[in-house]
Amino acid sequence: MRTQVAIIGAGPAGLLLSHLLHLNGIESVVLESRSREDIEATIRAGVLEQGTMDILKNAGVGARMEAEGALHHGFDLAFGGQRHRIDLTGLTGKAITVYPQHEVIKDLVAARLAAQGQLLFEVTDVALHDVDTTTPAVSFVHRGEAARIEADFVIGCDGYHGVARPAMPQQGRQDFQRNYGFGWFGILVESAPSSEELIYAQHERGFALISTRTPTIQRLYFQCDPADHVDNWSDDRIWAELHTRLENNDGWRVNEGRIFQKNIIGMRSFVSTPMQAGRLFLAGDSAHIVPPTGAKGMNLAVSDVNLLAQGLEQFYRDGRDERLQGYTAAALKRIWRAEYFSWWMTSMLHTFADATPFEREVRRAELECVVSSRAMSTALAENYVGAF
Amino acid sequence: MRTQVAIIGAGPAGLLLSHLLHLNGIESVVLESRSREDIEATIRAGVLEQGTMDILKNAGVGARMEAEGALHHGFDLAFGGQRHRIDLTGLTGKAITVYPQHEVIKDLVAARLAAQGQLLFEVTDVALHDVDTTTPAVSFVHRGEAARIEADFVIGCDGYHGVARPAMPQQGRQDFQRNYGFGWFGILVESAPSSEELIYAQHERGFALISTRTPTIQRLYFQCDPADHVDNWSDDRIWAELHTRLENNDGWRVNEGRIFQKNIIGMRSFVSTPMQAGRLFLAGDSAHIVPPTGAKGMNLAVSDVNLLAQGLEQFYRDGRDERLQGYTAAALKRIWRAEYFSWWMTSMLHTFADATPFEREVRRAELECVVSSRAMSTALAENYVGAF
Repeated sequence: MRTQVAIIGAGPAGLLLSHLLHLNGIESVVLESRSREDIEATIRAGVLEQGTMDILKNAGVGARMEAEGALHHGFDLAFGGQRHRIDLTGLTGKAITVYPQHEVIKDLVAARLAAQGQLLFEVTDVALHDVDTTTPAVSFVHRGEAARIEADFVIGCDGYHGVARPAMPQQGRQDFQRNYGFGWFGILVESAPSSEELIYAQHERGFALISTRTPTIQRLYFQCDPADHVDNWSDDRIWAELHTRLENNDGWRVNEGRIFQKNIIGMRSFVSTPMQAGRLFLAGDSAHIVPPTGAKGMNLAVSDVNLLAQGLEQFYRDGRDERLQGYTAAALKRIWRAEYFSWWMTSMLHTFADATPFEREVRRAELECVVSSRAMSTALAENYVGAF
Repeated sequence: MRTQVAIIGAGPAGLLLSHLLHLNGIESVVLESRSREDIEATIRAGVLEQGTMDILKNAGVGARMEAEGALHHGFDLAFGGQRHRIDLTGLTGKAITVYPQHEVIKDLVAARLAAQGQLLFEVTDVALHDVDTTTPAVSFVHRGEAARIEADFVIGCDGYHGVARPAMPQQGRQDFQRNYGFGWFGILVESAPSSEELIYAQHERGFALISTRTPTIQRLYFQCDPADHVDNWSDDRIWAELHTRLENNDGWRVNEGRIFQKNIIGMRSFVSTPMQAGRLFLAGDSAHIVPPTGAKGMNLAVSDVNLLAQGLEQFYRDGRDERLQGYTAAALKRIWRAEYFSWWMTSMLHTFADATPFEREVRRAELECVVSSRAMSTALAENYVGAF
């Protein structure tokens, strides 16, 4: 099999890249280890910046997002027994859209299949070959048969645990990382939303987040030990923890309901550089991870592949590779800004086991500064909506 | 001897408090362990916020400060081979005045003496008594003779190493602190200023600061090991380090000259609470320390004693102590904001030996955000000028 661009991974990065290339007349094949049902059913959060929305709309895959996504003009920061609204739109003129990642995936899969895109699910044994030549290849097994794709480029969109990053030449690579030593316990609940907008809560027992999903399903999170097990948390224990961390004396209550999913995710910051070597490029989580506190993960994946699509378009249109050569530098600018913001939000809002009393008080003072200074509120809002 | 308010320490806090009380008809005695010559000759930096200037002016001790202080409308942040101006006045409408602490002390000593204020230098063996009663006292030795002052109040303005804080009842006290593990190597140089405005430089070898003093004397600092000795640093080694940390490719050079003073100061954040117990109150460095990166030390001392003077004035005018009772809470609000800002500037601009590559890059990204976002620049400028 031969194609122009072999893409590993059918997450938002891989699917959108394939679609953007298609719109520029460039052929690609997407290989995905999971089934279509599986990737479409894995419920993931999603906060989309306006720039991300624009890219999806311009690619013709934004119709359902625009119809069903929930525009948010602000969120609350809760600490010290009070809630403070960050007026995103008032401060920046922009808003964000809450539209879950798996819905973006559904839209992209539908668009790729409608355009006869080559999308192979449940492939195994993916291996990259000759990525330091102009004729790289990917071997894999699909429906029990060994196969191989010859391509001009291979793009790793296969996430943090994928095969693409380890296939990069190791010489000259530098990884940057931080493990925060805590995780988020996430639950899905059958109930009406507790709040129309998101609530990010700092509490001495740990961070908590009221997220939203639909009029009948809530997504809630609270900081936990990443080595804990969901079985240790009865529904009653979870509600007690959420009530304690989120409620003040103002009468507002977290809506309870049937908890139908519980999971724990670790919190990590990670950047692997360079994001390219020869004809192999990395995009999205395969090259970088942000803790979810800043809501930047999907936005970074989309901005990465938008840059890559422009570079590949330039390459195929007039044989020049300046944009492709400049991909890492261009992508890292945006990535480090998001890494900074995600680290800042995470540091400011979570409880660190090893924090000294001084550090706890100085973070409290920082939060006071954020909500009392319009400039600081604006700085936070700008980063949150991606207005820079 | 009897007075209304016994003040320990003739730094800016103690002297200004004594003078503010005098203006309200309240009698005080100031005890100082050093000589007048010594406190007036110890060269210390000084950055005064507008609010600090206003308090000094309103107290009638601002004439020389207004005539000789240097108004600064901005400073430079230098990193990554480039300088970026923070336009304090453009961003906040305010400026700061560079006027050294020992000049403030000279003005205050002169004002106290002109008003026949009681100011005892070179006292030794200072001890506090009965501070949990309404008749506290201070014993000391002056000119070889034991003496004792009975007072209504005792105010500790005697700095971090003073006797007042240890004399506070220990029950219920909480100290907050951070030692940064590095210091500043400061030099005084006979030469014209290298820059009209201050330059705060982040460099992989460590922070450096171009400060200013007079048209013929420069004050320069660079981050060092606090356990290092000035004898280990020849003039040549100092200049080499400053050139490396401060200069880019733009042709600008640090002005060299004869170095006539070298000293090393440790960098520490510290807050001791409560700042009062019975009839004993703490103000300035006796209760809190900020690293000098935020230029907040003298401003906090002045705002503390301004609050205390208001409280004492209320007490003597109509016998009510609400303001005195609320002193700690009122002072800490301002103090924690300054502690936060000083910690932020220190964390962002210094090189930490234990920083991971991720932390170094995220701080670089933070600096990029500060200079590229008007909101972030404004947040920094607001804190620097004290506009909140």
